[in-house]
Amino acid sequence: MDRKWKVSLLLDFYGPLLSGKQREIVDCYYNNDLSLREIADNIDITRQGVHDAVKRTEAALFEMEEQLGLYSRFSQLEQGLDHIARLVHEIQENNHSSNQDERLEKKTNEILSIIEQLKEIN
Amino acid sequence: MDRKWKVSLLLDFYGPLLSGKQREIVDCYYNNDLSLREIADNIDITRQGVHDAVKRTEAALFEMEEQLGLYSRFSQLEQGLDHIARLVHEIQENNHSSNQDERLEKKTNEILSIIEQLKEIN
Repeated sequence: MDRKWKVSLLLDFYGPLLSGKQREIVDCYYNNDLSLREIADNIDITRQGVHDAVKRTEAALFEMEEQLGLYSRFSQLEQGLDHIARLVHEIQENNHSSNQDERLEKKTNEILSIIEQLKEIN
Repeated sequence: MDRKWKVSLLLDFYGPLLSGKQREIVDCYYNNDLSLREIADNIDITRQGVHDAVKRTEAALFEMEEQLGLYSRFSQLEQGLDHIARLVHEIQENNHSSNQDERLEKKTNEILSIIEQLKEIN
C-alpha cells in the first residue's frame, strides 16, 4: 500500500491520541495535501520544523500500530465480513435458481444488513 | 458492567500505550488482584503512591476509550458476529428439516468458520 495512504488511514485510528499541533500539521500534509512550505507559512514555523514534525508523527503512528495493531485487526475484520457477504450472495443465487425458500431469503437479507451496519462501525 | 472488569478490558486494548511502570502497577492491581499495600511493598513506593498511580492510569484508560472508542467498536462487532451466527444456525435448522440442500450446508458452515476466526482477531 502507498505509504501516504497508509499514514492517512493510521491517522483515522490514532489521530485522537496525537497532540493538537501534531494532528494539525499531519492532517494538512496528508489529508489536505499542503506542501511543507505552505504549512510552515500557515503556522509560522520553519519548513524544516514542519518536516521534522511530520516525520516524528509518522513514526509515532507506525509505532502505535505496531503496539496496538488496530488498523490491521479492523482490516482483517472487514475482509472477513466481505467474505461472508460473498457467501451469502451465493446462497441467495442458489436459492433463487432452486428451492426459492422465502425464509432463507429473509434471513440472508438480514445477515447482509447486519454486515452493512458492522462495516459502518469499522 | 463492573468497573474493575471494564478497566481490565480497556487494559487489553490500550495497555501497550501505557508506560512500563503504569502497566505493571495496574496489571498487578486489576489482573493479579494484589492489594495496594502488596504492590507498594513489591516495587518499593508508598501505598498512596500506588493508589495515585492506579487512579491516574484508570483515568488515562477511560480517556483513551473516550477518544478512540475501540472497546466499544469491537464489542459492537462481536455482537453483530454473534447475531449473524444465530441467523446462520437458524438457516441450517430450517435446511435440515426441509430441503436438506448440501451446498447450503457447506456454505453456511464456511460462514460459521469465518465468524470463529474473526472473533479470535477481536
